[in-house]
Amino acid sequence: MKRNINYDNLEESYLFSTIAKRVNEYISKNPDKKIIRLGIGDITRPLCKAVTDAMHKAVDEMGVQETFRGYGPEQGYDFLREAVKKYYSKHNVEIEIDEIFISDGAKSDLGNILDLFDKDNTVLVPDPVYPVYVDTNRMAGRGVNYINATCENEFLPGINDVDKNIYPDIIYICSPNNPTGAAYNRKQLKEWVDYALTNKAIILFDAAYECFIEDSDIPHSIYEIEGAKDCAIEFCSLSKTAGFTGTRCGYTIVPAALGKLNKMWLRRQTTKFNGVPYIVQRGAEAVFTDEGMNEISVNIGYYKSNAKLISDTLKECNIWHVGGKHSPYIWLKCPNNMKSWEFFDYLLENAQVVGTPGSGFGKNGEGYFRLTSFGSSENTQEAMKRFKALFS
Amino acid sequence: MKRNINYDNLEESYLFSTIAKRVNEYISKNPDKKIIRLGIGDITRPLCKAVTDAMHKAVDEMGVQETFRGYGPEQGYDFLREAVKKYYSKHNVEIEIDEIFISDGAKSDLGNILDLFDKDNTVLVPDPVYPVYVDTNRMAGRGVNYINATCENEFLPGINDVDKNIYPDIIYICSPNNPTGAAYNRKQLKEWVDYALTNKAIILFDAAYECFIEDSDIPHSIYEIEGAKDCAIEFCSLSKTAGFTGTRCGYTIVPAALGKLNKMWLRRQTTKFNGVPYIVQRGAEAVFTDEGMNEISVNIGYYKSNAKLISDTLKECNIWHVGGKHSPYIWLKCPNNMKSWEFFDYLLENAQVVGTPGSGFGKNGEGYFRLTSFGSSENTQEAMKRFKALFS
Repeated sequence: MKRNINYDNLEESYLFSTIAKRVNEYISKNPDKKIIRLGIGDITRPLCKAVTDAMHKAVDEMGVQETFRGYGPEQGYDFLREAVKKYYSKHNVEIEIDEIFISDGAKSDLGNILDLFDKDNTVLVPDPVYPVYVDTNRMAGRGVNYINATCENEFLPGINDVDKNIYPDIIYICSPNNPTGAAYNRKQLKEWVDYALTNKAIILFDAAYECFIEDSDIPHSIYEIEGAKDCAIEFCSLSKTAGFTGTRCGYTIVPAALGKLNKMWLRRQTTKFNGVPYIVQRGAEAVFTDEGMNEISVNIGYYKSNAKLISDTLKECNIWHVGGKHSPYIWLKCPNNMKSWEFFDYLLENAQVVGTPGSGFGKNGEGYFRLTSFGSSENTQEAMKRFKALFS
Repeated sequence: MKRNINYDNLEESYLFSTIAKRVNEYISKNPDKKIIRLGIGDITRPLCKAVTDAMHKAVDEMGVQETFRGYGPEQGYDFLREAVKKYYSKHNVEIEIDEIFISDGAKSDLGNILDLFDKDNTVLVPDPVYPVYVDTNRMAGRGVNYINATCENEFLPGINDVDKNIYPDIIYICSPNNPTGAAYNRKQLKEWVDYALTNKAIILFDAAYECFIEDSDIPHSIYEIEGAKDCAIEFCSLSKTAGFTGTRCGYTIVPAALGKLNKMWLRRQTTKFNGVPYIVQRGAEAVFTDEGMNEISVNIGYYKSNAKLISDTLKECNIWHVGGKHSPYIWLKCPNNMKSWEFFDYLLENAQVVGTPGSGFGKNGEGYFRLTSFGSSENTQEAMKRFKALFS
C-alpha cells in the first residue's frame, strides 16, 4: 500500500500550542495577574431559545415510532433548504433549492469541494490566510500561489495585485476575512467576478462571517454581484451566525449555472456523506424564523459592541487596523514596529492580554496581530482600559 | 478551471428509482392490494429513551452560558471515545483513545479515508458490493478489481479466490456483509489478516452490522484477530446498532501500529472536519451505558426475530440463502433459476412483496435477491405467509 505522500509536505502549525505554552508559563510565574483572552476564535454565547426549543421538539420526534426519521436526504431536508433560500432573498439573491446543499459546516465543504477539481489547477489564496485553504490543496498535491494582502491594499488584495505570471483557476476569497476582518465592497467584488469570468476561473467564496456586515455596500453573498453565479461557489455557516460551532450546520451554494459542478457536488455528497442530523437541521431551521433571527441578532450585537470598543480604542491610541466593523476580528499593526511575537509577549507582560500573532497566518501577517470580539463584554472593556494605559 | 473528469466515469445507479417506479405502476393498476416492503435498508424503530434523555440534557446545556460548548475536538470528545474503548474491551479488544475517531458515520469515513492513499494502489472489492466502495475509488481515478462472491464460497470469498495476477494493496471487507448478510468466522478472517500482512496490504474493514452477530466464532471486530492492528482500519456506526441513520454518529479505528496513517487521519480530520455535534455525541455516549445497551438490544432483537422468520421460511421452502442470522439482510437464490428482476416482478405480482434485485449490487448478484428485516413484525409475518403459499 502506498500512502498519499503529499501529507508529508504539510507544515505543522504550532501557533495555538505555542500561545498556550507562553500563557501558561506567564501564569505560573505570575499567579496573581488576571489574564484576558482576546485571541478566542470561537463564539461564547449559548444557543438561542428558538433553536433549543426546536431541537427539543426534534429529539422528541426521534423517540417516537410515528415521527421517527431515519436516513434523510444527503443534501439536506427541503424545510431547511427553503429557509436558506428565503434568507438569501432578503439580500435580493434568488437561489433555487437544488443549488443549496446543507452541510456540517463550511470547513468540511471547503475541504471536500476540492474533490471536484483536477489536480492540475492553479490556486490563488491570500496571504495572510485561513490555513485550511492551503492545507487542503497540499493534501491533494496541489501547490498554492499567494496574493499579497498588506496595509497598502488595506488587506483587500485586488486583481491588480495578482502576479502577472500566474493564471489562477481557483480563487479563494473570504469576506469578511478571517483572520483580518477586512471586507470587500461591491465594486471590489465585482472586479473579482469579472476577472474570474474572463479567465474562466472559479471563485470559492467563504461567507462564514456575513452576519457581521453592517453597510449595504458590503455584499453578504457574492451572488449579489452580477455574473457570480457563473463563476462562484459560496460557503456559509451558522457557526458564527447562530453559535453553531459545536452544533455543526452550514450550507454551500453550487449554482446550476456552473453546469456539471452542481451535479458533481450532489454525487460527491450522496456518495461520501449522509447528511446533517435531523435534530440539528430543525435547530438550524429555527435560526431563520423571525424569533430566531431576533434572538441571534442580540448575540451578534453583543460581539459587535466588543468589536467596536476595540476598534474605537485602537483609533484613540493611533494604532492602525482593519476589521472590527463588519467582522468579529480586528487586525492591527503592532505598535512601535514590533514583530508579531514580540508584541504578543509585550502585551502579555504589560497588559495581561492574549491575542494571536499575525505571523501565524502567513508572511504578510508579520508585524500584525489579531484580536477577537468573542470575549465577554466585561473582559473586553477591561482589556481596552489596559490598552489605553499602555498606548495612548 | 479543470474539473475532476473521473466523475464522468461513475455509473448512475437506477436500482432504487427503478424499484420505486415498478412498485408505483403496480399500485396504480392494483389499488386494492396490500404491498409489503422488505427491501428497506433503513432502520424503522425510534431512538431509545436513554439516547433521547441524554440529547435533551445536552440541548439544555447548549442553551445556557455556563454549560455551552463551542468547537469540540474534531476526533470526538473523550467521554465518547472512552465509551467506545470500553465497548471494544467487551470483545477483548484493547484500543487506545488516540486510535478512536468519532465520525458522522461509516459512509463518510469510508469515502474520506481514501485521502490517505496514493492514486497508484490496487484495490480489491467483493462482487456483489456496497456501491460506495467502488464509486469513492473511481472518483479518485482509481480502478477497482473484483473478487467473486458466489454460492460456491457462500458469498464469503477467501484468499484463494483472489485473481493470481492481482496484488491488492487495499482490500475491502464488510462482515457481516451488505448486501449478502454473510459473515466471516474467525478462521476465515485470520486468513485475510495473514494475507494482508504478507502482501503489505491494508484492509478497510466495515463493521457496520456487528451488533447483529450471535455466535462467538464470528468476530465483531477485525482486531479480535491477531495481527489485525498492523494491517486494518475498522469502520463502525451507530446507524444500525442504535437507530442513528438520521442522527449520524460512527467511529473509525486507525491503530497506532499503522504508523503514519494514524497521524495522517488525525490531520485529515482536523483539517477537513469539525467534529460531530456535541448533542449527538452525548446521545451516542448513552448508547454505551447499561441502560442504553439494554434498550437497543430490544430493537436489535426485534429485527433479528424478523430475520430469523424470513430465514426459517426460506429453509422450509427449500430456497437457498445466506445471511439472516448475524445480519439484518437475507440473500436468497431466486427460485426456479429466475433472474433478479424477473423474481422481483414475480414476487410483486404474486405476493405483493417488494425486495431488492441482487443484480443491482454487481454481476454476481444476478439471480439473487435481498430481503431485509427492518420492516414491522406484522408485515414480515404476513410476507412470509405469502412466501409459503407460493413456494412450499
